[in-house]
Amino acid sequence: MLTPAILNRVVGAALEEDAPWGDLTSTAVIPADATATADLVARESGVFSGGDVFAAAFGLIDPGVTVDVHVGDGDAFTDGDVLASVTGSARSILTAERVALNFTQRMSGIASLTAAYVRAVEGTGTRIVDTRKTTPGLRAFERHAVLSGGGSNHRNSLSDAVMVKDNHLAVLQQHGADLATALCESLSRLPHTTHVVVEVDRLDQIAAVLAGGAHTVLLDNFSLEDLRAGVALIAGRATVEASGGVDLNTVSAIAETGVDVISVGALTHSARALDLGLDIRIAA
Amino acid sequence: MLTPAILNRVVGAALEEDAPWGDLTSTAVIPADATATADLVARESGVFSGGDVFAAAFGLIDPGVTVDVHVGDGDAFTDGDVLASVTGSARSILTAERVALNFTQRMSGIASLTAAYVRAVEGTGTRIVDTRKTTPGLRAFERHAVLSGGGSNHRNSLSDAVMVKDNHLAVLQQHGADLATALCESLSRLPHTTHVVVEVDRLDQIAAVLAGGAHTVLLDNFSLEDLRAGVALIAGRATVEASGGVDLNTVSAIAETGVDVISVGALTHSARALDLGLDIRIAA
Amino acid sequence: MLTPAILNRVVGAALEEDAPWGDLTSTAVIPADATATADLVARESGVFSGGDVFAAAFGLIDPGVTVDVHVGDGDAFTDGDVLASVTGSARSILTAERVALNFTQRMSGIASLTAAYVRAVEGTGTRIVDTRKTTPGLRAFERHAVLSGGGSNHRNSLSDAVMVKDNHLAVLQQHGADLATALCESLSRLPHTTHVVVEVDRLDQIAAVLAGGAHTVLLDNFSLEDLRAGVALIAGRATVEASGGVDLNTVSAIAETGVDVISVGALTHSARALDLGLDIRIAA
Amino acid sequence: MLTPAILNRVVGAALEEDAPWGDLTSTAVIPADATATADLVARESGVFSGGDVFAAAFGLIDPGVTVDVHVGDGDAFTDGDVLASVTGSARSILTAERVALNFTQRMSGIASLTAAYVRAVEGTGTRIVDTRKTTPGLRAFERHAVLSGGGSNHRNSLSDAVMVKDNHLAVLQQHGADLATALCESLSRLPHTTHVVVEVDRLDQIAAVLAGGAHTVLLDNFSLEDLRAGVALIAGRATVEASGGVDLNTVSAIAETGVDVISVGALTHSARALDLGLDIRIAA
Amino acid sequence: MLTPAILNRVVGAALEEDAPWGDLTSTAVIPADATATADLVARESGVFSGGDVFAAAFGLIDPGVTVDVHVGDGDAFTDGDVLASVTGSARSILTAERVALNFTQRMSGIASLTAAYVRAVEGTGTRIVDTRKTTPGLRAFERHAVLSGGGSNHRNSLSDAVMVKDNHLAVLQQHGADLATALCESLSRLPHTTHVVVEVDRLDQIAAVLAGGAHTVLLDNFSLEDLRAGVALIAGRATVEASGGVDLNTVSAIAETGVDVISVGALTHSARALDLGLDIRIAA
Amino acid sequence: MLTPAILNRVVGAALEEDAPWGDLTSTAVIPADATATADLVARESGVFSGGDVFAAAFGLIDPGVTVDVHVGDGDAFTDGDVLASVTGSARSILTAERVALNFTQRMSGIASLTAAYVRAVEGTGTRIVDTRKTTPGLRAFERHAVLSGGGSNHRNSLSDAVMVKDNHLAVLQQHGADLATALCESLSRLPHTTHVVVEVDRLDQIAAVLAGGAHTVLLDNFSLEDLRAGVALIAGRATVEASGGVDLNTVSAIAETGVDVISVGALTHSARALDLGLDIRIAA
Repeated sequence: MLTPAILNRVVGAALEEDAPWGDLTSTAVIPADATATADLVARESGVFSGGDVFAAAFGLIDPGVTVDVHVGDGDAFTDGDVLASVTGSARSILTAERVALNFTQRMSGIASLTAAYVRAVEGTGTRIVDTRKTTPGLRAFERHAVLSGGGSNHRNSLSDAVMVKDNHLAVLQQHGADLATALCESLSRLPHTTHVVVEVDRLDQIAAVLAGGAHTVLLDNFSLEDLRAGVALIAGRATVEASGGVDLNTVSAIAETGVDVISVGALTHSARALDLGLDIRIAA
Repeated sequence: MLTPAILNRVVGAALEEDAPWGDLTSTAVIPADATATADLVARESGVFSGGDVFAAAFGLIDPGVTVDVHVGDGDAFTDGDVLASVTGSARSILTAERVALNFTQRMSGIASLTAAYVRAVEGTGTRIVDTRKTTPGLRAFERHAVLSGGGSNHRNSLSDAVMVKDNHLAVLQQHGADLATALCESLSRLPHTTHVVVEVDRLDQIAAVLAGGAHTVLLDNFSLEDLRAGVALIAGRATVEASGGVDLNTVSAIAETGVDVISVGALTHSARALDLGLDIRIAA
Repeated sequence: MLTPAILNRVVGAALEEDAPWGDLTSTAVIPADATATADLVARESGVFSGGDVFAAAFGLIDPGVTVDVHVGDGDAFTDGDVLASVTGSARSILTAERVALNFTQRMSGIASLTAAYVRAVEGTGTRIVDTRKTTPGLRAFERHAVLSGGGSNHRNSLSDAVMVKDNHLAVLQQHGADLATALCESLSRLPHTTHVVVEVDRLDQIAAVLAGGAHTVLLDNFSLEDLRAGVALIAGRATVEASGGVDLNTVSAIAETGVDVISVGALTHSARALDLGLDIRIAA
Repeated sequence: MLTPAILNRVVGAALEEDAPWGDLTSTAVIPADATATADLVARESGVFSGGDVFAAAFGLIDPGVTVDVHVGDGDAFTDGDVLASVTGSARSILTAERVALNFTQRMSGIASLTAAYVRAVEGTGTRIVDTRKTTPGLRAFERHAVLSGGGSNHRNSLSDAVMVKDNHLAVLQQHGADLATALCESLSRLPHTTHVVVEVDRLDQIAAVLAGGAHTVLLDNFSLEDLRAGVALIAGRATVEASGGVDLNTVSAIAETGVDVISVGALTHSARALDLGLDIRIAA
Repeated sequence: MLTPAILNRVVGAALEEDAPWGDLTSTAVIPADATATADLVARESGVFSGGDVFAAAFGLIDPGVTVDVHVGDGDAFTDGDVLASVTGSARSILTAERVALNFTQRMSGIASLTAAYVRAVEGTGTRIVDTRKTTPGLRAFERHAVLSGGGSNHRNSLSDAVMVKDNHLAVLQQHGADLATALCESLSRLPHTTHVVVEVDRLDQIAAVLAGGAHTVLLDNFSLEDLRAGVALIAGRATVEASGGVDLNTVSAIAETGVDVISVGALTHSARALDLGLDIRIAA
Repeated sequence: MLTPAILNRVVGAALEEDAPWGDLTSTAVIPADATATADLVARESGVFSGGDVFAAAFGLIDPGVTVDVHVGDGDAFTDGDVLASVTGSARSILTAERVALNFTQRMSGIASLTAAYVRAVEGTGTRIVDTRKTTPGLRAFERHAVLSGGGSNHRNSLSDAVMVKDNHLAVLQQHGADLATALCESLSRLPHTTHVVVEVDRLDQIAAVLAGGAHTVLLDNFSLEDLRAGVALIAGRATVEASGGVDLNTVSAIAETGVDVISVGALTHSARALDLGLDIRIAA
C-alpha cells in the first residue's frame, strides 16, 4: 500500500532531487508574495491515479498551498478535463510543479494501461495483476496505480511469498534436486502463512508441483491449448496464473482459457507517461 | 553524473525495497552452497546502458559474486547477444536478478530511444537533450542513459540553472512585471556562473529575452518556419533550443532549421524497458 | 530473515547508542597498541543464537578484530563452554563487548525458551511459532532466535498476511458487518498470494470463517475439549492454530489435540537474557 | 532522557518495522470511515511506564487519533484498571495497537521490577540503578522505565563516564601497568567533568583506586562482610557501588551494608513484559 | 539557497549533537512549567544574518516557543540592540540557546565581514563573491550570510559549474594536453547550460582560454597592472574574476581595475563569530 | 572523540555537499586514467590537526588514492613544510581537494590558537579547555583539534554533565527557588556519575554552590583579585574554572590566580583557518 510514510519519504526525496538547494528561477523572477491558481489539465484521455501524491508534492514544499483534487483514483477522464486545482504562493507552485506532474503522469499512465487490460478480460472473472518489474524505488506507487486501473497486485517483494521460477529450477536441476521434494521441505521451514507459487513451462511438470504443495501454479508461455489443459489438470487444487506473450491483443483469449490470474510485466515496465499539464490560471 | 555515492544509495534502496527481510524463495529451495553462472542476454536489439548499475546490484547483495560486463555503455547490441555474465552463489544471483534487470532494462530502453533521435539528426550539429521529466529518484541514472545513447544533458535540477517557462511568464504578467526588466534584475542577484534559459512561444518575445540577458532562448512549439525565423533573429547572440511536438518523424526537420539544441521529454518519460533476460547457464 | 543489511544497520545503531562519541575508558586507560584474546563463556546451559551478530559487533567497531564462533546457531551448550573467541586490539574488544553480549544473551535466551517449548511438543507434529509481540526494532533478530530454538515463524508484519483478530471482529460487529461476507470481499481485493488467518473464540464461529475462505483458523483461548472439537470441525480445510493460555505446563496437552500450530507470545516478550560472559584470557 | 526526538525516531521505526507497506487486514476488512474507542486495560498489577510512548504510537500513525492516558509514569495499578483510552479511526487504532502495547508492556515490566527492588531497600538510603545491559536500540526507553519504578540511572553510555572494569584491569595487568598510575594519567587527559568509576573484586585493591582519584568504587561480587569492610575503608572519600549476586532476596541485606548504590542488570535484561491489553469498547 | 529542508535538517542535527539524550541541567533544576522571555542582544555592532535559523532552533526543540525576530537579514545593528525575543517554556529556551547562538553568531560574523568588503568596493560595480572555502556542512548557511552582507555567491559546488584551476592545468600539462583543445572538447560533452570558469596566472594564457570558450576568466594573484591589462585584453568577451591577495586594504584598488567579480575565501573561512548573547529578561 | 563513525559520516556528508552529482570539471578536462601526486604544503607556521580527516576525504572518494601524512596531530610546522602527500587518480584527488583542505585548515587553525593559549599558561598547571561554542555539526572535530593544540575538553554536550549558568539562575530566581536547595535536589535525581558545574558571578554565591554539592565552581567575569579570593574560598573542595574576558593578553594572569581550568570560547568560535595548500607535483 501507498502508506503516508512511504509517500512522504519518496515524494520528499524527489523534491530534494529536483531542487537540492532551491529553485533559482522562481526565487529570481517571481515576487515572494505573488499568489496563483493553477489547474491540472488532461491533454488526452485516461484513468487517473495519484491524487494524494500530487497533493503531497505541493504540501511538502509549502503547507500553505491548497490542493483540491477533483477526481478520485480510478476515475476516467478525457482530454481537457480539469483534474485538480492548486492555489497558493506562486513560487511554491512553480517549484513543486514538475515533481507533482512526474508522479501523476506516470501513475495515470500505468492506471490507464491496466484499465485497458482489465476491460479486455471483462466478464471472464480473470484477474490482471502486476509483477516485480517495477521502477526501482516506486513499487508502492506503481502497485497503487495498478489498483487504480482495476487490476490486482501480485506479491510485493521477495520477502512476502515464495515464487519458484525457471532460474530456480535450473539451479535445482544442476544440483540434482527433485522439485516436489524441495518444495515439501521448504514448506516445512517457512511460516505457515507463506503462499507458494511455482512456475512451470510444460504440462508434465504440474503434477510434481501440486504434490509439493504449491498454492499457485504459474503457466509460463503456454499456448492457449496448453493453458486449457493446465486449467483442467489443476482442477481447482491451486490457483492458476498465466504469464508470457501477454499483450492487449492476446489477453482476452488467454483469460478465456479459464486461468484465474494473468500477470503482465508491461503494466509497470512499459507504460508511457500520460500527458497532463499544469496551467497557471490567467485572470480574465 | 552517476557517482558511486548515488549509485550505491539508490541501488541499495531498490534491493531493500525488493527484499526487505530477505529472499524467501532462494533461502527455502536453493542450497546455501550452490553456485551458478548466469548470462545477461539481449532478447531484442538496442543500445546498452547501465553496466556499473548491473554489477552493483549483485555486488551490494554479495561482494563474492563476480560480474563481467562484456559491453560498454553506449554500445549497440542485437537480439541474442550476451551482454554480461555473473558467477557466484546461486542464492545471491537469484536475489539480485530482478533489481539488476529492472535498472538495466530501463536504462537501455532510454539509451536506445535516445540513439534513435540522435541518428535522426545526424549531420546537423544539433544536440538532442533530456528534460526534468525523469522518473522520481532516478534522475542521475536516466541522464546517464541519455549520454549512453549519444544525447546530451540539460540542467540537472531547479538549483543549477535558471529556466523561465510559460508558467513563470503567466505569473509575471499577472503581476504586471516586464520580462526584460525582471530578467536583468534577477541576473544581478544570481551567481555570475548561472546560465539563464527563457522559453518563448512567439517570435515577438525574442527581443526582450535577449535584452534581458538570456543565454539560451527556448522556442516552444514553433512551426518549422518560425524556428528558422527565430534562429535568424537570434543570430548567434544566444543558444537556440527547440521543444514541443518533437518525435522521431519531426525531429530531423526541426534540426535542419538550425537550432542548436532539441529537448525531448519522451527520452525519459516514455521510453519502454528493453527486453533483457538473465539465464542461468545449464552445464552441457 | 536476518539479512546482512538489517544486521549491519541494527548492530551499528546499537554500537552508536552505546558509544556516541567513543569509549572514554578504553581510550583513557588501555594502550592503543595493546592486543588481547577474549572468550565468550557460558555461565549456564542453553541453546545458542546470534553467532553472526556477535561477530558483527566487533567487526563493525574494528575490521581487524578476528572472531571465531565455535558453535552454530541452534547448538546446545552447558555452563562453562567456550562459545566463541575474539582476538585483536584490546581497546576495540572492550568497546564492543557489551553490545555483543546484549544481543547474544537476548537471542540465546529466546532460543533456549523456544527449545523448551519445542521439546515439550516433540512427536506431535505441532509447530511452535512466534508472534508480533517482539522487541521494537529487533523483530528480525528475535524471529531468527526462534528458528535457532527449533520453532517456526508466524507472519513477519501487518504487511505480509491478513490476520483478523478479536478487535477487528468487534469493530465489524459494531458496524453491522457480517464476517463471512467481509472476508470474501476482502480476498477479492487482496493479492492472490495473501494468506488469511481468522481468530475465533467460539466453535460456532468456525463455519463462517471457512465459508469466508480463511486459510488458517486461530482458536484463541479454547479449552482442550473445544480445541479437539475445532480440529474435527475444520477437518483439514484450513490450518488450525491455537493460542492463549500456553505455557510449558499446558503446551503438550494443547499439541495433542491435533492443532497444527501453537503461537506463543512469551517466546519473545518474556524470555530472560541468558548468562554469557566475555573473559579476557590471562596469559599463563 | 526520553527526548521527543528519540521517542519519535524509535517509535516511528517500530511502526515501520511492523507495517512496512501498510496493514493489510485493517484495510481489507475495516470500513475506512469506521471509528472506535479502545481501552488500555491492565490484566495484572504493576507500575506504569510509557504513557508518552503509548500516545506517540497512535499519533505517528494518525494525528487524528485522540489518546487520553489516565495514569502517570510511576503510578501503581491493579488488574482490571483502565490505564488509557484511545478514540479515532478504527483502522488507525488497529494498525498501531501492537507497537503501542509492545513498548508499554516492556516499559511497565521494567518499572514494576525496579519498584520491587526499590521497595526492598526502602529506608536504607541506597539507590537502585540500572546498567548498560539494556535492549539494543531501547536504552532511553528502559532508563526512563527504571526512573518510573523509583530507581536511578547509571551512566548512559561509554561516552559519558569512565568505568574501569575487570576486563580493563586484566589487560592493564598483562601490559604490566599499574592501576593507580594509569588512573591518574587518564584523569589528566579526560575532561575535568568526567566521573570515574573503578570496579574492584578484592578489598586490597581499594587503596590504589582511591589514590588514583576514582569518584566511585564498585565492589563487585563482595560478600556482605566484605561490603561492610569496603564501606568502612572508603569512608566517604568516594561513592560506594555494589554489584553482583543481586536479586530480590539479597538486595535488602546488601543495602544494609551501607553502600550508596546497587547496580542491577536484571532490571533491564530480564524483566518480563507486563500483561496489558487493548480492548475495543463495545457499545451497550 | 537556505531551503526549509536544509535548514531543518542541519539545525536539527546540531540540536541532536548538543543534547543527544536531553538537557540534564534544565531538566534537573528548572521547573517543568516555568516560562521565560529572553532577548537576543548585540554586544557589538554588525550586520545581521540568520533570523530563520535562530527561530528554527527554538521551534524544533519546542513548537510552543514564540520567536519574534526584530531585524531582517542584512540589517545593520549596534551594540546593545535587541535583535529578537523568545518566549515560552524556560527549559526549552535554555536547551536551544547555545545552538541558536552558534548559528547566528557565525552567520552574522560572515555577513558583517562581507559588508565591509562590499562597502570598500562601493561605486565600482564590482561584485564581492564567496568561494567553496566554507565550513563543511554549512555551505547553504554561509552563502546565505554572504548575501545578507550584500555580497553575491559563486557556484555552489563542483556539480553546478566548471572551474578549471591551477591544479587542473598542472595535470593537463603533465599529460601533454592543450588547454584550449581540452576546453572546447569538454564544452561539447557538458550540458549547454554549464558555465565555464578558467583560472590563469599569466596574461599570455588568456587568449587560449577565450579560444576554448570560457565564460569567465579568473585572474589569480595578478598585480594591479596585470589586472588592468587582463580586463583590456578580455574586452567584454568573458566575465573577469579576480582572486588572491585580497583583503580589506587591497580590495578597493583591485575593484578599480575594472574586474567584474572579486572572490574572497576569507568571507567564510576566517570570519570570527560576532558577539551576540541571549539574556533571560528579569521581571522588574 | 573523533570516532571512525563520526569521521566517515561528517566527511562523507561534506563531500556530498561539495559534489552532489559529481565533479563536472575533473570529469570534463582530466583524462580518466591520469594519475598525480600532490603535496599538502604549509603556507604559514602552526600546529597540525586533522591527519585522519585529510586522509578520509580522499579515501571516501576513491579507496585507491594513497595518502601519506608526514606529521602527527599536535606537531608544529613552519611555512613551506610538506605535511602530507597524496597519490592516485588525478580526478579523485582534484575532487576531494577542497573538502580535505576545508577540514584541515579549520582544525589546524583551532589547534594553533589553542597552542598559543597553552603556551601562555605554561608552568601554572592550569588547563585550557573548550566550550560548546563550536561549529554546528563539527563538535567532535573541533574538540579533537583543541586536544591537538594541547588543550583539554570540557563536557561534550548538554547530556553528559550539568552546568548551571546565569540564565538558569535567572529563571530559578524568578520562580523564587533557592539555588542550594535546587542543586541538592537535582543531584538526588541525576545519575551518581554526573558532574555538576555551577557558574557564579559574585564571591558571595560560592558558599551556596558548595553547599549544594557542585563539583566545579565556574567564576565568570571575575577580576583577578576576586579570582584569587574565589580560589581561596573554595579551598580545594571543588574544581575552580574561570571564564570571561579571556584572551592571549589576559590568560596568563588569570592562570596565575590558581584556578584549575580556564574555558575559552574563542578557541572554536573565532579561530581563523590556517593557510594550507595542495600542490600537484610537477615532474622535473
